[in-house]
Parts: sequence; C-alpha cells; structure tokens
Amino acid sequence: MKKFGGIDAGGTTFKCVVAGQDGTIFEQARFPSLDSAQTLKACISFFTRHLDSISGLGIASFGPIDIDPTSSRYGQILETPKKGWSGVNLKSGFDNALGVNCVVNTDVNGALLGEMQWGRAQGVNSAAYVTIGTGIGAGIFLNGGFVGAPTHPEFGHIRLERHQHDDFEGICSIHRNCLEGLASAPALSARFGPTKDMDINHKGWEIESWYLAQACLSLYLTIRPDRIILGGGIMLANGLLDKVRNETEKLLNGYTDMKSSEIEQLIVTPGLGDNAGVLGAVCLAIQAQR
Amino acid sequence: MKKFGGIDAGGTTFKCVVAGQDGTIFEQARFPSLDSAQTLKACISFFTRHLDSISGLGIASFGPIDIDPTSSRYGQILETPKKGWSGVNLKSGFDNALGVNCVVNTDVNGALLGEMQWGRAQGVNSAAYVTIGTGIGAGIFLNGGFVGAPTHPEFGHIRLERHQHDDFEGICSIHRNCLEGLASAPALSARFGPTKDMDINHKGWEIESWYLAQACLSLYLTIRPDRIILGGGIMLANGLLDKVRNETEKLLNGYTDMKSSEIEQLIVTPGLGDNAGVLGAVCLAIQAQR
Repeated sequence: MKKFGGIDAGGTTFKCVVAGQDGTIFEQARFPSLDSAQTLKACISFFTRHLDSISGLGIASFGPIDIDPTSSRYGQILETPKKGWSGVNLKSGFDNALGVNCVVNTDVNGALLGEMQWGRAQGVNSAAYVTIGTGIGAGIFLNGGFVGAPTHPEFGHIRLERHQHDDFEGICSIHRNCLEGLASAPALSARFGPTKDMDINHKGWEIESWYLAQACLSLYLTIRPDRIILGGGIMLANGLLDKVRNETEKLLNGYTDMKSSEIEQLIVTPGLGDNAGVLGAVCLAIQAQR
Repeated sequence: MKKFGGIDAGGTTFKCVVAGQDGTIFEQARFPSLDSAQTLKACISFFTRHLDSISGLGIASFGPIDIDPTSSRYGQILETPKKGWSGVNLKSGFDNALGVNCVVNTDVNGALLGEMQWGRAQGVNSAAYVTIGTGIGAGIFLNGGFVGAPTHPEFGHIRLERHQHDDFEGICSIHRNCLEGLASAPALSARFGPTKDMDINHKGWEIESWYLAQACLSLYLTIRPDRIILGGGIMLANGLLDKVRNETEKLLNGYTDMKSSEIEQLIVTPGLGDNAGVLGAVCLAIQAQR
C-alpha cells in the first residue's frame, strides 16, 4: 500500500502524519506553531525521516492562504494577525526542503475532504465542515467541488441576530455581530472564562448554541447540504451538539418538514475527531496522485 | 433557426413566449394566474397555435414545486397558500395537451439561467439570482450546476438582524425575523403602504436596503458568487440598487478588500429585466435538446 504525508497546519499546532491510502496512520508528530521557521524545520525533519516511504504530501492550513494552484503565491499565508507568519509560503518551504510537489488547501476544506473520505460525510453529494475554535470558518463541497475556489468563502463573518441576553460587543475587530465575533472560543472565554469550567447548564452554552444554530440554518437554507459537520475545539463541550440541533429545529419551526431525526442526520460532529484535518491533508495528496 | 417555447409561471401572471435560440422573442402573451384550469387552458391555446414552430418547451415556475426529473411528481406544485394550485402538475398538464416533453425548474433557477445565457451573468463561474417580490427566493449556480438539486434552497427564509428602527413583526407566519417576512413586497406595503408611492428618500428604502444588503453579504460570505442578481418587482424602485450596494459595502467594512467598483460588479439587476424568467424557461428547453 502506498503511503502519503499530511500536515494539519493549525494556528496553535502543526500535526504531521504518514498514513496509508485507507487512512491508517503509521507515524505522527505534533509541533507548536510559534515561530514559523522553527515549526517548518521540525516538520521537515519529521518528513525527511519518512521521505522514502511517502508518495506525496498534502497540507491543510489555517488562513488566509492562497490556495489557487495557478497563482504565483500558491501555498502562501496571506496577511494574518499571527505574528511572523504573514507571507510564509508553506508550499515552497516544503517543496524545496523535501524535493516534493505538495498540495495545499484550507484547513476546513481539508477536514471536509477527510470526513467525506473516511468520516461522517461518506457517500453524500454535498456537505459543509464548520470549525469552531480560535476562529470560525467553513469548507463547503457541492456539485463535485469545493465552493469558492480558487479562493475560499469567509463564512465565519456572516452576520447574526443577537441573543436577547447577550450584550457582548464581539471580538471581531471588523464586524460587530458576526459569527466569529460572537461564537468563537475567544468570544466565549471573554464573557464566561475558560470554557472547560463551563458545565452543561451554563447559560453560555445556551447563547453559543443559538448562534451556531443560526449558522446551521443559514447553511441549510442557502445551499441545502446533505451534511453539516461541526468541528473544532468548542464542539468537544459535552451536550453542545444536541443543543445546536434543538435550536436549529426551533429556528426552522417546521419549515421544509424537517424531522428531528433528519436534523440529527444533517448536523453532526467529525467522525475522525481531531484527525479530520490531518487525514484530509493526506486525502489532498492522494487526490493529486490520480 | 430553431424556436422554443417558454413559460414564466408566476403567482400573478403566466408569461408565454416563442423565442429563437439567440433569445429573440417572436410571439408572446400574458395570462393572469387566478384559476389554475383557466390559466393552463389559455397557455395551451397559445402554444397550440405555435406548436409547429417550436422544438421544445421549458417552464420556470413559482413554488414550492417538484423539480426532480426522476420523481413521480416532477412538475407538480406542492402545498401552497395560493388557492386552487396545490397539487397542480404543470408538466403533465402541458405534456398531455400539447404532446411535448417539457422541462420544469423553479422561477429563480430559470431566471438565473436566462441571465447566464443572455443577461448580466454571462461568462461567470458562479452566480445567484434573488427575486424580491410577493415572496423572496434565490437560485444559485456554482461548480457547473444549480445548488440544492433535486430540490431547491429556501434562501428567502434566512434569519436577519433587525434594523434598529424596525419593529414590524414580519409577514412570514413561520419565522419572525426572516428575509421574506421583513423585505418582501407585502412586508413593505404592510408597513409603508403601496411601494409605488414611496419616493427615493422614504425611510422604508433605508430599512429595505439594510435587509437586502444582509442577504447579499450572506450569499457572498457563504458561496463567493461572481455575480448576485437582484430581480423582482421591488428592485424596480428608483435608487434601491445603489442603496443595497452601499449598505453591503458598509456591512463588509473593508473585509476581503472588496472595492466599491467590485461591489458594483458583484451586485446587479437583471439584464433581461422582466423577461429573465421567461427567457430562462426558453434556455431550459434549449438545454434539454442538447
């Protein structure tokens, strides 16, 4: 069986794996993504050890990033508040050091691809992967391709109706009432302290699920995906998925005759868990070989 | 040159045309859509006179309607508040009377197709057509096909943030704060009287453009279409298009570096005007021949 390399290039951690064509992970490592040069060096060192065994390398990266294969900046991280990373070109960094021709896409497109191949979006025609963490973003696949290519949508900045008991100004410096500004991890902890200390009945989860339900409603009514996968650190909170499903059902209010059981099918968490992104990166490498 | 028949099956009027493959209209007629049997009879009578000259018939219809060619109900108007129309099957009605094999899609998908062929969405990879009239709906095309097939999205029911000076309860019986409930023609006239009496400085247009800008923002951030076409009777209001563009720019607030000139390219009114739907129906017939 052929093996491939994958990198989930996150704002906090770079995860690297060597995996088979069936998604089996043979080798893995994690490196903090503080200094860009050090992070790339650590990843390159990992893959140098496994270079003989891999047939390709895929990268699913935080953004904004140029994912247009025809662009001269393909693989380059664009203007980002993350210090020392603006302008870093992941593709040329790995290509030059390893002598490969790697494939780069967004973290959410990668995670979505992983879920379509081996996770909870297998066999569907259309799906969205929404990550709710330090930031919020979505990858969408329909009619046989990612949405927004050669760039990517900015779903994290859709405008929301405010929860009636929420007067938080939001953490997005650009939009007051946007999804990322109100429902990302930093937005939650700015109001309620560390999310790990919020138990299931904390009112913060009521507010959070109301916002995430609006995001699901918006995706559903605009593009009718077969599956909406909610990933990212925040979705690990106990009971949150059910709250989001319930709020979405309330917001739909019987419209389109969606039953509770259908909403359970529609809105799910990642089947690959924390490995969705890195296995998606492996998928990118596999697809490029075809 | 081959000729084709097209029907824009609207909630108020059915428009029928015979047109060439280049979109030239040779014959046309309009019939009020009050009684379903009478309306179909009038249309059938029109096409019977031109049956020898047409090579196919397309219908772009109000909904909800079954547009799945593999469904036993293909072409059937589903449960609708429009009296006497629930369960009427347009396809079988015309097929049986005229001996044709007509193609049926939604009014907004039809109008979008017309605009892609002969209007303001020529040469783009992705586009949305939003109609703002008695109801609000959107047809979206990306990655080579319509979005939501074999059904269709229900973009008119996305949830909006309320305008700070708007305490109207909305006219949608299902959702309090949805686009259709707050920004459709009946929603406007319920608050402000007949829209034809509202001059350009009427505060109603400020509220309307704020809602339509949220719709444009949502479409842009979710699917990144190359073009958003705003059609329907309400968009005939003098100056409204510019107000919507301005509000969209304010909402984006510099995000994604969209310039005013790019927003003008993004958000437009139909190039085919009132004929977008009926010429789109002709396109449906032409496509089916290929």
